[in-house]
Amino acid sequence: MSSQNPGFFTMDRTIGLLGGGQLGQMLCEAANPLGVKIVVLDAENSPAKQVNAKNAHIDGSFIDAEKIRELARQVDILTVEIEHVDTYVLEEIAEKGVEVTDKDGSKRIKRVEVQPSWRTIRTIQDKYLQKDHLVRSGVHTAISRAVETGELAQFGRELGYPFMLKARKDAYDGRGNYPVKSPADIEDALKALKGRDLYAEKWANFRMEIAVMVVKTEDAASDIGKGTIAYPAVETVHEDSVCKLVYVPARTVSDKVQQEAQDLARKAVGSLWGKGVFGVELFLMDDGRLIVNEIAPRPHNSGHYTIEACPTFSQYKSQLLSILGIMPSFPNSVIPTMSSATIMLNILGGQSKTSHNEIVKRATSIPMAALHMYGKEPKPGRKIGHITIVAPSMPYAEALMAPLIKLSDAMRAERK
Amino acid sequence: MSSQNPGFFTMDRTIGLLGGGQLGQMLCEAANPLGVKIVVLDAENSPAKQVNAKNAHIDGSFIDAEKIRELARQVDILTVEIEHVDTYVLEEIAEKGVEVTDKDGSKRIKRVEVQPSWRTIRTIQDKYLQKDHLVRSGVHTAISRAVETGELAQFGRELGYPFMLKARKDAYDGRGNYPVKSPADIEDALKALKGRDLYAEKWANFRMEIAVMVVKTEDAASDIGKGTIAYPAVETVHEDSVCKLVYVPARTVSDKVQQEAQDLARKAVGSLWGKGVFGVELFLMDDGRLIVNEIAPRPHNSGHYTIEACPTFSQYKSQLLSILGIMPSFPNSVIPTMSSATIMLNILGGQSKTSHNEIVKRATSIPMAALHMYGKEPKPGRKIGHITIVAPSMPYAEALMAPLIKLSDAMRAERK
Repeated sequence: MSSQNPGFFTMDRTIGLLGGGQLGQMLCEAANPLGVKIVVLDAENSPAKQVNAKNAHIDGSFIDAEKIRELARQVDILTVEIEHVDTYVLEEIAEKGVEVTDKDGSKRIKRVEVQPSWRTIRTIQDKYLQKDHLVRSGVHTAISRAVETGELAQFGRELGYPFMLKARKDAYDGRGNYPVKSPADIEDALKALKGRDLYAEKWANFRMEIAVMVVKTEDAASDIGKGTIAYPAVETVHEDSVCKLVYVPARTVSDKVQQEAQDLARKAVGSLWGKGVFGVELFLMDDGRLIVNEIAPRPHNSGHYTIEACPTFSQYKSQLLSILGIMPSFPNSVIPTMSSATIMLNILGGQSKTSHNEIVKRATSIPMAALHMYGKEPKPGRKIGHITIVAPSMPYAEALMAPLIKLSDAMRAERK
Repeated sequence: MSSQNPGFFTMDRTIGLLGGGQLGQMLCEAANPLGVKIVVLDAENSPAKQVNAKNAHIDGSFIDAEKIRELARQVDILTVEIEHVDTYVLEEIAEKGVEVTDKDGSKRIKRVEVQPSWRTIRTIQDKYLQKDHLVRSGVHTAISRAVETGELAQFGRELGYPFMLKARKDAYDGRGNYPVKSPADIEDALKALKGRDLYAEKWANFRMEIAVMVVKTEDAASDIGKGTIAYPAVETVHEDSVCKLVYVPARTVSDKVQQEAQDLARKAVGSLWGKGVFGVELFLMDDGRLIVNEIAPRPHNSGHYTIEACPTFSQYKSQLLSILGIMPSFPNSVIPTMSSATIMLNILGGQSKTSHNEIVKRATSIPMAALHMYGKEPKPGRKIGHITIVAPSMPYAEALMAPLIKLSDAMRAERK
């Protein structure tokens, strides 16, 4: 590592990536021109591997401890594109290193960094621990309580209906969430989430979902958001519990709220350990308060727009440079966009394998639109790509996006 | 092909690329997110292959006729990232197709498009034929004459000294050019270019080198530049006969000259055959006239800047969509930049394999800079990467670029 060996050029350090989906793919797309080497651990031919033939990758699962150790032996830093990984192996590797065999057959222990820290990933992957950590760090978030089967009615009585029953782990895109509207729903909720550790969360009456990508540049945790840099606060629109649209900057939001959202997101990420890029989802509540909904310790769907809107510093480049320890500083700790208005639309697989051809064709016909297809097999509802439109004003961007949203809605109708 | 089979989705057509250097690499980087498949013919592990593991590529030379036929069998459209290819094989393939063997052992002829046309590539790769074609098309260019050994003194007497003696073919980055300052130089010039077909060119007293990337969207040639779209006219600065810097837009150039440069470049490209992106090099003469110096029938070093400055429509995306026949139209036939000012600096290999580490480190420390390393072995003077800076104004961009130019100059001094 550079601190131990000043002759070792920072950008020659190899990164090991757990997971090779679209986030890993776009991370590789950012790494290639920087000359940063990435070794990917995921299934054969996963999206990230399709765009990186610079070295051999590892075929296997990013939750397989032995595969993770195999990856660690080949790299200098481990990072993730998904938080559902084995943090106990990551802890072992970060604390004790990994045993490697040299050419002469002798064995030695090699040090490998884990970024962000396994502690951060472990805290975040359990959504209740995450919320508990945020509360302890003085970050506003929804009131949550770890619950056993018998405690739900009590929670409802105290904090009111509706409330959310959520699986603590392995939950994403709304899977693992169950809205409990009245005491009568409790039984169904418990059945739907059977066998999982659960927590209950007070219902959030929000008027807008906001997201902020934050880069953490220092290893230590801080209670004031030190060592963090934010991208602008964006507006996210979900449909069927999946991110559909991202508007940059968030529409109809005052400069004050824009700044508060960045500050809160930086404070939340600053409270965690290790370096990297984080996606912070927030709610702008009906009463005007901002609370953190949840944090992803990795590049995030709400940050795809940065590829075109911040063409010299996407969230993927920030992830690479921050974990390499060479993230530059930005005036006011903000990474600005170059475009005045940006909108991102996810492309979900349609009913047939060619349902998305229409939207792809349309996207390529718009000068201000960038298309990103992930090379994934199109399955109904699966995220298979996205479109980013950059324009001189939000109404202009909205007008260009309108026909694409229409095509997306038609695909959704066909899927049902 | 789509016109013959309406059920065949345009973007499913596979492109075969002759050459896999950095231009091919950036073409693949543009193709990957579009879901456009490219099969590359070049040496093993060439830059383009490093970023495209979506399919098997072909190892071999892009001047090997049999390898080109092998490539043609696998694709729907052939294109080039270098003009020094065998145009007779391309003509054969474009005119007669290529024989393929089906699974059942039966043979059939498959049609394959060649874009741009072999006729364009053949005309351009012989610099004298290129100049002759431009003159016949009414495009201003330097007065040139194909010359035999004994005719040089005559050319000097008629058109004056100094003049340039140039090899007609396989010339690039100043190699193949010899300035003849007086009759006494003729012998040395002929010795330096011995064994090559030659032409002489009247000396051009220019005050600035300008380049315009032009996209040709129709197959037919036109004498008024119909079916062409231009990027802005940029200023190029050469050193040791290699492009060093590109300023976007060209500095200290009036709107009138900016427009004339685009118009002349579009007229020049419009006179050629087939579709694709073209780099047009022009001279802004001391007397204020513009003349075309030469044309490249492919993406060009002077268009690298488009990756960041035109983040939804780089020259590489334009190459792909134009040869696929789905290039959209742009208002006023201009592809605008999103940044106010852009500067590109080439990184040439230094004296040692690590000489460029300093400039790489510095480039990653600048928020408004994008780094592109090509994954090529660093050899002294070899183009191994480039840096693009986007900024709100040209003085701002120049201030950010200044320390990088200093490092580049230091590498050059070390090389000598």
